[in-house]
Amino acid sequence: MLAIRLIERKRDRGRIEPEEWRALIFAYAAGDVPDYQMSALLMAIYLNGLDRGETVALMEAMLESGESLDLSHLSVPRIDKHSTGGVGDKVSIILAPLIASLGVAVPMMSGRGLGHTGGTLDKLESIPGFRTDLSLLQARRQIDEIGCALFGQTGEIAPADRKLYALRDATATVESIPLIAASIMSKKLAEGIESLVLDIKQGPGAFIGDRGSAIDLAETMIRLGADRGCQVVALLTAMDRPLGRACGNALEVEEAILALKGEGPADLMEVTFALGAEMLLLAGVAKTRADALAMMAESIRSGDAATRFQQIIEAQGGNPGVVDDPAALPQARAVELYAAPRGGVVASVDPRSIGRGITALGGGRTTMADLVDPTVGFLITAKPGARVEAGEPLATIFARDAAGIATGRAVLQRAIAIADAADEPLRLVTHRVTADGAAEYKG
Amino acid sequence: MLAIRLIERKRDRGRIEPEEWRALIFAYAAGDVPDYQMSALLMAIYLNGLDRGETVALMEAMLESGESLDLSHLSVPRIDKHSTGGVGDKVSIILAPLIASLGVAVPMMSGRGLGHTGGTLDKLESIPGFRTDLSLLQARRQIDEIGCALFGQTGEIAPADRKLYALRDATATVESIPLIAASIMSKKLAEGIESLVLDIKQGPGAFIGDRGSAIDLAETMIRLGADRGCQVVALLTAMDRPLGRACGNALEVEEAILALKGEGPADLMEVTFALGAEMLLLAGVAKTRADALAMMAESIRSGDAATRFQQIIEAQGGNPGVVDDPAALPQARAVELYAAPRGGVVASVDPRSIGRGITALGGGRTTMADLVDPTVGFLITAKPGARVEAGEPLATIFARDAAGIATGRAVLQRAIAIADAADEPLRLVTHRVTADGAAEYKG
Repeated sequence: MLAIRLIERKRDRGRIEPEEWRALIFAYAAGDVPDYQMSALLMAIYLNGLDRGETVALMEAMLESGESLDLSHLSVPRIDKHSTGGVGDKVSIILAPLIASLGVAVPMMSGRGLGHTGGTLDKLESIPGFRTDLSLLQARRQIDEIGCALFGQTGEIAPADRKLYALRDATATVESIPLIAASIMSKKLAEGIESLVLDIKQGPGAFIGDRGSAIDLAETMIRLGADRGCQVVALLTAMDRPLGRACGNALEVEEAILALKGEGPADLMEVTFALGAEMLLLAGVAKTRADALAMMAESIRSGDAATRFQQIIEAQGGNPGVVDDPAALPQARAVELYAAPRGGVVASVDPRSIGRGITALGGGRTTMADLVDPTVGFLITAKPGARVEAGEPLATIFARDAAGIATGRAVLQRAIAIADAADEPLRLVTHRVTADGAAEYKG
Repeated sequence: MLAIRLIERKRDRGRIEPEEWRALIFAYAAGDVPDYQMSALLMAIYLNGLDRGETVALMEAMLESGESLDLSHLSVPRIDKHSTGGVGDKVSIILAPLIASLGVAVPMMSGRGLGHTGGTLDKLESIPGFRTDLSLLQARRQIDEIGCALFGQTGEIAPADRKLYALRDATATVESIPLIAASIMSKKLAEGIESLVLDIKQGPGAFIGDRGSAIDLAETMIRLGADRGCQVVALLTAMDRPLGRACGNALEVEEAILALKGEGPADLMEVTFALGAEMLLLAGVAKTRADALAMMAESIRSGDAATRFQQIIEAQGGNPGVVDDPAALPQARAVELYAAPRGGVVASVDPRSIGRGITALGGGRTTMADLVDPTVGFLITAKPGARVEAGEPLATIFARDAAGIATGRAVLQRAIAIADAADEPLRLVTHRVTADGAAEYKG
């Protein structure tokens, strides 16, 4: 009876009170509210929205439906970074060891890929032996020892969110700002962090395309964090093209390893350092942006960052040898260069086509039950705005077999547009959003 | 995959094509689309609407998900009457035998009570032995023999509608004009009728309160009928107070029997004759309204109407003796008069309070699984606008025991408002709606 009254109320643009959210979400997690009532409510929320207080109450109810990591015994600052999801986005895999190597605890709980975007867990699991299914106790011990753990949402963390997320995915109610914000923050706040840096992707390859909505989402999450004493800063970054060169699970881990050794592509490093600097500033470890950048550069130069990644891999059962020798990562059986079909300017590299192309090659999921082939994907050297000659290599296709190569070629033909002239691509980092509002980013 | 694309489309105010409706509704009826996806779509429909073509396609898909009565072998006209539901509305029980007695086939499929309104099947089942669970074959045979059958929606008729209706009831998506219209018409058109008279209730006791929406609903159903060659006429009738005096299952059957013998209360007869005249005109059996009224009056005077009801009861396993002796209907154990607490004018008799009061006494349903006590209810002689003295009887309470009498008294105290002066009640029949549009009703 409670559920139907609340559906009616939200349907009619009314307000659901905090104690009602709590009762509803706990009953749903316990199986006492059927999915068919919850999905009707989700659609009413999608179309009629939630106000600030409702979003807070929903997030708190989901958070409190499960356990949290308690890291209050640590003397070091505790921070995480979260991305709303893009193509080629391996920044988390670089930043987690890099920031941990600078004396900051990074309890990083990530997700799997779905739709056209990849997932950090899928990428990490391309490292032979690497396990992401840590219990909260295991994660806590590992953070105590090496300052970082890279793990998945356990059954203990926000189980109501886990159940709701699967339902949203099946009912076309994912792309709602209050639902996205409450879902992300219910998990992030369960990590026991003091502050959080958000990477809000923006552009045609992002879940939320337009700038206004991206800022709205950032501000919603900043408020949700503030409500629980967690300081949040967000950067809006470009997802009008893939980030870096590598797109595909093992390929991206290899590129992350290169980055930790100072050999990452420029666009990837620009975004990584921008987000990393925010983390170090929020954590209070760096006083200025210049200090933060210098600290990160030194950790990479000295090998500390790469060593920390080895320690994490080892702690989580993986082969740490991949850091010294990325050829130890699983390798695709079929590899072929893709050449420019004409000369001109690269007008665009469409991230959605690339992301869906990885799935078409067997490297992504259309349902949560799908198995992922870690070896397949693309290494795309062509960047929007670059002048190219006909026949010049633009990318490499990594596939299972000749049929996969043909698929990959068709994907790249669709994804990479060459024209006589082209507009400037988006700036990599466009806005910085804090509790004080959004401002243009000044690097 | 189909369902989620269609949910997305309706969520974004797009249009679902006829072949997509068909595939979706058939898959849902077959259990291949889960309830949680359908309920998200229902909420999107509730909030974003359906256009004319979509409503037709949904109705046709639901109709074609099951069987239809084939009555094309009959030489007589075939017509039904449907009410959107009110309190004290026993008109179907009077009109079915009355119109059948005048040489018109009336295949009348009805529903059960839910919420504050009663249901014709529940009322009929208060007749000892009366069965409403006829198969289509049984209904057809009975219509061949005595021109009328009073039965419930079988599993054969519009099974998709049956499943959808239960889901709408559980997800606060009942009160949507296209969904109501498609649901009603998918069942009515399965009756094999050539024409249909609709009684659209209007006022605080109706599911749809305002006049504009009532006319909109009428026009939607008229179009749905026209699309399948079924001529539909609708009357808008008052549901700002109960219709007639009797409210409660056996009590209403008794009042219907009185009406068939010429002893029904004036308001009930006015609405019954207005709807009956439309039926006889549509069926082509009467040329003018005056002819139609004279035919109905003569059937009642001669006893033909009452005899036809006896035949129907006998054919459906019930005790036909109730027509001659309504005391053979089940009787309440506790009966008490309710007197006016003060003198003045009856300002209102609230139908929702009365309807919910019947449920509180055990005579209605809050879920489809509830059993109904046929004996309980109210006989309300007080009419809005009437002047009453303090202590004058306004109603009789029929209950199971003394506690029920106390409940009934509290219900009537809330429901019957007495004031020093009162506005005029709604006219009983206000509008007539045809394919040419809505016009004020001129009796």
